[in-house]
Formats: sequence, structure tokens, C-alpha cells
Amino acid sequence: MTVDRLSPSGRPPEVNAPSWRDGAASIAMLTFAVDMETPVLAAGRRYAENAMAMSHQAFDARRGLPRLLGILDEFDLKATFFVPGVSAERWPDAISDIAARGHDIAHHSYTHRPSTELTPQEERWEFERGFESLAALGITPTGYRAPMWAATWNTAEIAVEHGISYDTSLMDDDRPYIIETSRGPLVELPPHWSLDDWEQYAYLPAPHLGYVIEPPEKALALWTAELDGLREFGGLFQLTAHSFLSGRAGRAQNLRKMIEIILERGDVKFRTGTQLRDAVLADPSVERRKLEPVIVDPASYPNW
Amino acid sequence: MTVDRLSPSGRPPEVNAPSWRDGAASIAMLTFAVDMETPVLAAGRRYAENAMAMSHQAFDARRGLPRLLGILDEFDLKATFFVPGVSAERWPDAISDIAARGHDIAHHSYTHRPSTELTPQEERWEFERGFESLAALGITPTGYRAPMWAATWNTAEIAVEHGISYDTSLMDDDRPYIIETSRGPLVELPPHWSLDDWEQYAYLPAPHLGYVIEPPEKALALWTAELDGLREFGGLFQLTAHSFLSGRAGRAQNLRKMIEIILERGDVKFRTGTQLRDAVLADPSVERRKLEPVIVDPASYPNW
Amino acid sequence: MTVDRLSPSGRPPEVNAPSWRDGAASIAMLTFAVDMETPVLAAGRRYAENAMAMSHQAFDARRGLPRLLGILDEFDLKATFFVPGVSAERWPDAISDIAARGHDIAHHSYTHRPSTELTPQEERWEFERGFESLAALGITPTGYRAPMWAATWNTAEIAVEHGISYDTSLMDDDRPYIIETSRGPLVELPPHWSLDDWEQYAYLPAPHLGYVIEPPEKALALWTAELDGLREFGGLFQLTAHSFLSGRAGRAQNLRKMIEIILERGDVKFRTGTQLRDAVLADPSVERRKLEPVIVDPASYPNW
Amino acid sequence: MTVDRLSPSGRPPEVNAPSWRDGAASIAMLTFAVDMETPVLAAGRRYAENAMAMSHQAFDARRGLPRLLGILDEFDLKATFFVPGVSAERWPDAISDIAARGHDIAHHSYTHRPSTELTPQEERWEFERGFESLAALGITPTGYRAPMWAATWNTAEIAVEHGISYDTSLMDDDRPYIIETSRGPLVELPPHWSLDDWEQYAYLPAPHLGYVIEPPEKALALWTAELDGLREFGGLFQLTAHSFLSGRAGRAQNLRKMIEIILERGDVKFRTGTQLRDAVLADPSVERRKLEPVIVDPASYPNW
Repeated sequence: MTVDRLSPSGRPPEVNAPSWRDGAASIAMLTFAVDMETPVLAAGRRYAENAMAMSHQAFDARRGLPRLLGILDEFDLKATFFVPGVSAERWPDAISDIAARGHDIAHHSYTHRPSTELTPQEERWEFERGFESLAALGITPTGYRAPMWAATWNTAEIAVEHGISYDTSLMDDDRPYIIETSRGPLVELPPHWSLDDWEQYAYLPAPHLGYVIEPPEKALALWTAELDGLREFGGLFQLTAHSFLSGRAGRAQNLRKMIEIILERGDVKFRTGTQLRDAVLADPSVERRKLEPVIVDPASYPNW
Repeated sequence: MTVDRLSPSGRPPEVNAPSWRDGAASIAMLTFAVDMETPVLAAGRRYAENAMAMSHQAFDARRGLPRLLGILDEFDLKATFFVPGVSAERWPDAISDIAARGHDIAHHSYTHRPSTELTPQEERWEFERGFESLAALGITPTGYRAPMWAATWNTAEIAVEHGISYDTSLMDDDRPYIIETSRGPLVELPPHWSLDDWEQYAYLPAPHLGYVIEPPEKALALWTAELDGLREFGGLFQLTAHSFLSGRAGRAQNLRKMIEIILERGDVKFRTGTQLRDAVLADPSVERRKLEPVIVDPASYPNW
Repeated sequence: MTVDRLSPSGRPPEVNAPSWRDGAASIAMLTFAVDMETPVLAAGRRYAENAMAMSHQAFDARRGLPRLLGILDEFDLKATFFVPGVSAERWPDAISDIAARGHDIAHHSYTHRPSTELTPQEERWEFERGFESLAALGITPTGYRAPMWAATWNTAEIAVEHGISYDTSLMDDDRPYIIETSRGPLVELPPHWSLDDWEQYAYLPAPHLGYVIEPPEKALALWTAELDGLREFGGLFQLTAHSFLSGRAGRAQNLRKMIEIILERGDVKFRTGTQLRDAVLADPSVERRKLEPVIVDPASYPNW
Repeated sequence: MTVDRLSPSGRPPEVNAPSWRDGAASIAMLTFAVDMETPVLAAGRRYAENAMAMSHQAFDARRGLPRLLGILDEFDLKATFFVPGVSAERWPDAISDIAARGHDIAHHSYTHRPSTELTPQEERWEFERGFESLAALGITPTGYRAPMWAATWNTAEIAVEHGISYDTSLMDDDRPYIIETSRGPLVELPPHWSLDDWEQYAYLPAPHLGYVIEPPEKALALWTAELDGLREFGGLFQLTAHSFLSGRAGRAQNLRKMIEIILERGDVKFRTGTQLRDAVLADPSVERRKLEPVIVDPASYPNW
């Protein structure tokens, strides 16, 4: 039972396939975190004084983002872009360009500080300021991703309260599901670290962004293996690229190769976050869950 | 003298081969750590507040474990599952499903805190609570693995005292041996870090689980090289997979490939922990050792 | 749309190509950091007492640098060498040999301490002492690179004040641009971590220089992917090698292979820093920017 | 100018080749660090209480070392083994077995604590105790390697004072040279981190031995690239394997492959430390140096 059997010709028709997949073996959702300077500033305000570090992040707006938008245009593909409010304020033209090309723009906090290190009041403030920054560009996001995916148990409630209808922060599945909040449903589109470019490409000595710089071909091998796995198991292939990372020349070509591989598979369809949200909400077979915070006995885990 | 000579056709009949190998060049023992949330909670109770981190671990029960159980069923293979008590309490149905399919279930502590960081009383408490949690599901384990393999010099004694007859925590051999405790024999089935999926796949920024995310093909190259080495040297190929890690789609396919490679070799037999324990106890050629704690001269190593 | 289309035969003539590229798809600028002992001493004066660590760095002058100079001679190529003042004082003959062979020698601070950890007075002192050390060898550099690329917002101003006309420290582009300082233009030739040999090869346990030692073939794959990307997007391929690292035997051969690959592409031209500076200054299409320090709201990023 | 030209048939006769290479393109010196428990204990005496960590190291004596000795016997090759005194005291039979097979045994300190973290008196004590431990087995070493290669500026003097005639701790060359100490010559046979198995294979979470576990094939690619480089540049290929690491089954096979590759090259000769020392001392072309401690100006490097 090898991967070969997954070729379009050899795959048997699937019985009772969920409708969110629309007949495909897997759904590919290309997502881009347009972080600009925010993850470096979130590591410490002092890094603003490091002109190299700031320039390393500004590559995002100056070259990385436009280059990736161009590659999406080559394939006439729509993707989903997660934008921190500070990015939108610092680089409004770059963000407006994303919207003008018809892509999804989603909320990615205001400052990119992880919610798990904030008070509930601060997390709420991040939501509000993020909306304001995008509203100034005429953008009303309906999707959300927590910075570093570090959602709290309050995040889903706050998100729905603010009009968010899909989230991509939780990792307990590789198929979409619906979170039932006290204010209504929130579609969860689960991401995973293994489909992220950060762990393969990110490097700065200070702040310390990562440990290695891998060749694009290694990232491609990792992502393609997961793509083929998700095709077998009927999951969501949600790729997360950062425009300051995957916008580098060789990596941008690699992203193009990834798109080509997805297309060559022949049994995968591309969807944006809002498209997939609608398909999930319309699919009665999708699992519905309530979030259940983990309660820990201090006698078992005395170390805070 | 190359690996080629190890092909089934070319291998000369082995003289005086130990009976625990039952005529095979190597024994393959597939083991799964069903850690669920425990290794993250062991790093600090505060991580329970990180909904993403908890969801990252809950993938184990929701998708990873069932997927891996399905792959074992494809080959009609029985494996050995190491279950912390907290996992059994939080996800009883998932654990009962393992047992219902006829796999070995072994003790893996209660909380997954390393014994080397506990008092002797705490280590004993971990044993007792772990047994209770499994007993509630009707499971009486006879095998044990220390969390993070971090056994103390007391572990073997405590294990036998509680009815454990095989352990898989010590790394001073790649063949089984028998530890003579004051209360009777304990079969040691030695593991090793190089046959673990954690170092290849585990990644979370907080708590910091690991440094890299490698493609499945890299893990396969590593494990296959060790398999072929153990076939030459007549050792035990004990693979350790974590269902929250190897349960991801591409990695699950990779585990299937590993099983296929083992089968293709033609001279390797699969055994569970209890099967191998019985074969080892019945083999008079197996080495018997008493554990000898390492005594250190503080004059040579003044730093504690 | 694959990399194949980039082959010399298949590439269509480029319309309105900027003149700094002189008709090439990409410009290759080979740069060498001749750090000798300086990055280890910058990590702490105490490491001078570690004879092994010092010898590890002295390989630079004794074998690494001469070997790399020999390889450049094989191809009759001129490259750009960044020399800290302390290196020039400790190993004057090695540095003079670079100049005698006709390569560019550029300023790389005096001590290799990152400017971002110095006071403005100390950064200025580093400039002055670095010039003095090179002047003692009859060398007047016109290029500059900040140690660890860690430029401050003052660096460009100080550089131009001291007669520097090109810099290679900022990463917000992969094409040259011109920084308009208060004292005149500074050509920026942007580097990037992914085209650096340090992250692939550097290893010392104390001071901790890096995490992994990669095979040369991995570095080659990384750099070749970026080369081909920059050929497509019309960027600058600036490779940064350290003579104490890439001067090791297998890595030196790898650098030769990299040069051969660049030559085989057929559409890339080699330039030194000063050659490229002149071409950039003569190109009216090159972007001109003022540096704009990033101002951070402490209310958004309270952590210093 | 590619590696192909280095094939035995294509290589032109070398003019004025130094006699220490005895007509070969490169000399291969296989060295083994027989560290047993010492590097873990050197990280902290408390690790003696971790039975798993101690067993991880004891694999060295129980399986790793005998396995590697067997592979050397297959090829009738003599190698050089560096033995800490504590290893000799804890595992005398294992060490005597090395000597009985006719290999070189060299001094590797008493405790494996790095000399750079000891007082001069402690470094001297390490020398004396190490000699005593080996003398108890009838072994008088003439070679030395500092633990972690961390030699001080005193190490060469102390070594010669104690009758050591060759050292392998300094990295400022890839050809042998002679250190002129106040008491006579010391042959330096330079090692390097890139020809060490530790950075590729070592892993323990506590103490933290390393970051990654690489497949044997990656180590082979790294070492083979360096071998071919040293063949071109006429250097010393000194491979450092640790018997607790490279003694693992797949890695042991990999070491066999490395030996086969060296043999297949056809222009490399194997030498032990003492054999090479004698050849170096008899070669008038070998460079002779005095060690010159690095003196640092605290005004340039104020941080201790």
C-alpha cells in the first residue's frame, strides 16, 4: 500500500466523502503571514534600534510580498493573508495591494505578541486595535489566526464576539471542525508547525528566530510528504508561508514548485479561508465541539 | 563486506543464534508513546492555559492514535503502547480502543515527569497512580518505560515490586538482557534515541520540545540504517513513535513505509513487549546483570 | 513555469533591464569575511586563553585564506574581502597578500563586536581604528560591512563621513539601492543570512558559534537554489564565506563548485564591491531611499 | 577542475611532496575517543544518579567498542584510541582489549573535564592521574588529546614534560606540524570538528549533548567531502569517532563504509598516531612553530 496508489487514476471513488472537500482528496489552503517588523518587535522593543534586523523584516513589504503576489497571479490563485495591525499601519500600500488583487485578508492581532503572554484585557485590546488598523484600509476581516498560533481558551469567544467566523490556531485535527462558542459557531481550520516555513527558513541571531537555514528542496520534501498523507487521509493541507521568509528568491521559486506539485496531483482543490468556511458551515457531517479547557491537578504537576 | 551480503538469499545460516531471535536476523518491536498532554504539562502546569499547545497534544487522541492503529491493522501487526496514567484518565476511550484491538499496553508513569527529578517517594507514587489509572480501564500492564527513559537506579526494583516483568529504559545494549533485582528478574529491552521520532519531528516554541522539523524521508533513512545494522549484529530494532507526532498524515505514511521495509528485508520478525519478554526469559544464553549504580569521587568531579 | 525556462537559450531578452546588471540575469559578488580570531574574542576576552579556540580561528590565516585565494586565481576572479582591524594587525602578511592579488579589501570594524551593542562613540571608534589598521598596510577601503551585519541607524552616516561609498549590511532588498545620507549617497549591496556559510558550517562549543555542521553539498543546494531564484528575479547574488570556515578542504572544493555552477549558468556576471558600486551609481533606474528608523510605541511593545 | 581529476589514474605525480605522506595524496588517521561515562559526569556529578544516562554511556564498553574493534580487524587496520583515566579504571578489560589487538592507546585526561575550565594545578593533576590509570593496565601512552580538544597554552609544555610526543588538539592547520616547546618537540596532528561524529550523532536531553541526530549517510557525505578535499590539498584526514556513538549498529556499518571509501580512493594511506609522529619527525619539510598565546587588549575587548 504505497503512495502510488494515490494517483488520480488509481484512486477509488470515495464513499460518503464530506462535502467540504467538494470531491477532492484534500483541500489546499495557501496562507501567508504578513508579519513585517512585528515578530521582531514582539521579542523586544529594543530591536527597533537594530537597523539590520528591521531591514530584514522590511524585505517583506519591499520585495517578498509583491513577489509572492506575482506568483499567485501566475496561477490565478487566491490565497489567505494574515495581517497584524501594526503591519497594516506601517505598510498600508502593501496591504491594500493584497486586497486589490482579490485575496482574503484575515486578522492576525495588532502587535504579534502571543496572547498566552497577555492579560485577557490585553488580548481584547489586540483584537480591537487590529480591526481598527484594517478598517482604515477598508478591510473587514472575518478570519483570525493567533500570533504564533498561541491561542488562549478565551480566543474563540473573543473572536466570535468581534465578528470573526473562522479561526486557524488550533492543532487537534487535520480536518476542519466547528467550535461552538457561547455566541455562535466558529469554523476551525487547523494549521500545523510542519506546514510552516518558519522552522525551515527563519534565522536571526538577535532576536533568536530559529536554529537552521534549510534549502528550499528540504522544505518541499517535508510539505510534499504531508500533502500526500493528507490526500490519503482526506485532510486539509494548510500551508503557512511568511512573506519575509518565502519571499526570498529561491524560496519563492520553491513555493511555485509546491503549487505545481499540488496541481499535478490532480485530486486537490485550492480554497481561501472564507471559501472553506462556507463549505464547512454547509457540511452537516463536520464535527462540532465545545472547547474544554484543560484542568490540571497541582498535586500531579506542582511546577508552575 | 557490505550491506548487500545481508540479503536473505546471501546470509549464511547463523551458528548458535540466541533463541530470543527465533531464527530472525533482528527482532522489530514497534512501540508507541501515547503521551497526549502529559509531556507539555510536565514542562510546567502553566502550559495548560495555552489552548494551541493543548490542542497540539490532543491531536494524539483525536487523529494520531486512531490513524496509527489503522495502519497496524492493515498489516495485522501487534505493537506495544506506553500510556501515562493521566492520558488514560483524560482519554479513556482512546486507550480502551488500543486494548480492544489486542495490542500490548504498558506503564509509562502517571504524569510523564522524569523520575530523575522526583524523590523516591514521588517515583513510587507515579507507579501506583499509573497502575490505578489503567486498572480503571481493566488493563494490568506488565511492561514499563520511564518518561523520557529517565530511569533512576531504583526504577527496576520498584517496577518488579509492582509486578512489572519487562522494562524499556536503559541503553547499554542493543540486545535484550535480564536485570536481576532483589525481587526477581526484569527483562530489559533496550531503546535508543536514534530510533525515536521525537528528535526528528517534535516542535513547539513553548515549551521548547525540539529544534528541527525533519521530513519523514530523513527519519526513514536514519531508522533504516539502524535496522540494517541491527540485522547484521543481531540486535533489537525497537522503534519509538509518539502518536501525537507520527500520527500526522505524512509521518503516518512514513511509518507504513518503515513497516514495509522491515517486511521486505525478509529476515526480521515482529514482536510485542510481552512476546519478547517471554522469549528472552526462555533463552538461557541471554546475559543476566545486576544494576551497579555509578559511584563518583567528588574530588574528580567537584561540580554537582 | 519551471527553472528550466531560465536556461540561457530559453530566456527572452529582458526589456528595460537595469544597467547595473550589465545585461546579465544576476550579478554574483563573492565576499569573504577574514575574521581570524575576532568573532571569538568579541564573545569574551577570556576565550583568548583557550588555545584550541584560538587555533581554530588561526586556521584562517594559515590555510583557509591562502587556499581560497588560490581557488579565485584558478578562475582569474576578483572578490571582495571584509577585514576587521584586529585581523589586519595580527596577520598583516595575510591581508597584504589579498591586496597584492588585486582583490577589493573593505572595512569590517576594528574588533568585530556588533555595533548594536556599542555606544555611538564606540561605533565611531571602531570605524577609526579599523581605518588605521588597514592604512598601516597601505589599504584605504571604500566598502563597509557591519560585524554580524548588525548595523545601527547611525552606521550609514558614520560610514559616508569616513569616505565609505558602499555598504553591505542591510537586508530589505535583493537588488542594490542607494541610501541618501546627510553627507551624500551610500550604495547598499544587500546581503542575506541564507547566502552565508556561517549558519551551515560554524561550530565551537564555547563560545557557541552554531548548532550544526552541514555537508558542503547541503550548502551548495541552498546557494544554488537562491542563485536560480535571483536569476529569475534579477537580483544580486552576494555570497558571504568566512575564510576560517570555507577554507577547510572539502568546503573550499565546494566553493569551487559554486563558482563553476555560476559560470555554467551563462547569464551571470561576477563583480567586486567597487565595480558594482560604480555600476549602481551610474544607473539612474536604481532606487534611492532615506533610512527611516523604526519608531515604536511603548504602549504596543512594553517589553524593552 | 573537478574532483574527478583526483582519481588515481588521473593524478599527476606530485613534485616535492612531503615525506610524511609517504607518496599518498592524504593520510587517514582513524581515532576513537573511548569516553565511557566521563563526558556526562564532567557535565555534573549529579548525572550519575540518572541510570539511563549512565547506561547510554556504558553502551560504549559493552557493545560499541568491541563492535568497532571487530570492524578494524576485518580490514586489519590499526587505529588510535584516546582513553580518559576514569574510563580505564571503570572498564579495565575493555581498554586492555584495545591494547591486546595492537592499537595505539593515547592519553585523554583523567576525568574528561575541559582543561580551559581548570586551574594549571588541576590540569597537571589530570595528566598525572591519567598516566597512573593507564599504567595500571601496563600502558604508557605517548600521544595526547585534550578533552573536547580544549587545550590551554600550557598543555603542550605539560604534555612534553610527561613524555608525550604527539598531540591532537589544535586546529590551525590540516597538515601535521611540530610545536617547539621549552622541553623539546611535540608533533601536532590537527583535528577538526567537521571530522567528528559527536556533532552528527550525540543526543541526550540532560546533560544536553547535542541538537540533532543525523542519519549515518549524512555523516558519510560530510566526511567524504572533506576526505576528497584533503586529498587535493595534501592534508591529514583525522576522523574522530566516539565508541558510545559510532558503536551503534547502523553507524558502525557507516564507519565501515567510510573505510571502504578511503580504500577505494587508492591514494590514501592509513597511519596510527605513533606511526605518523615518526614520519613527521623524520620529515625536514614539516613546519616548526612556537606556540604564541593570544594577548588581548582589554580596551578593545572589555567583556571578560
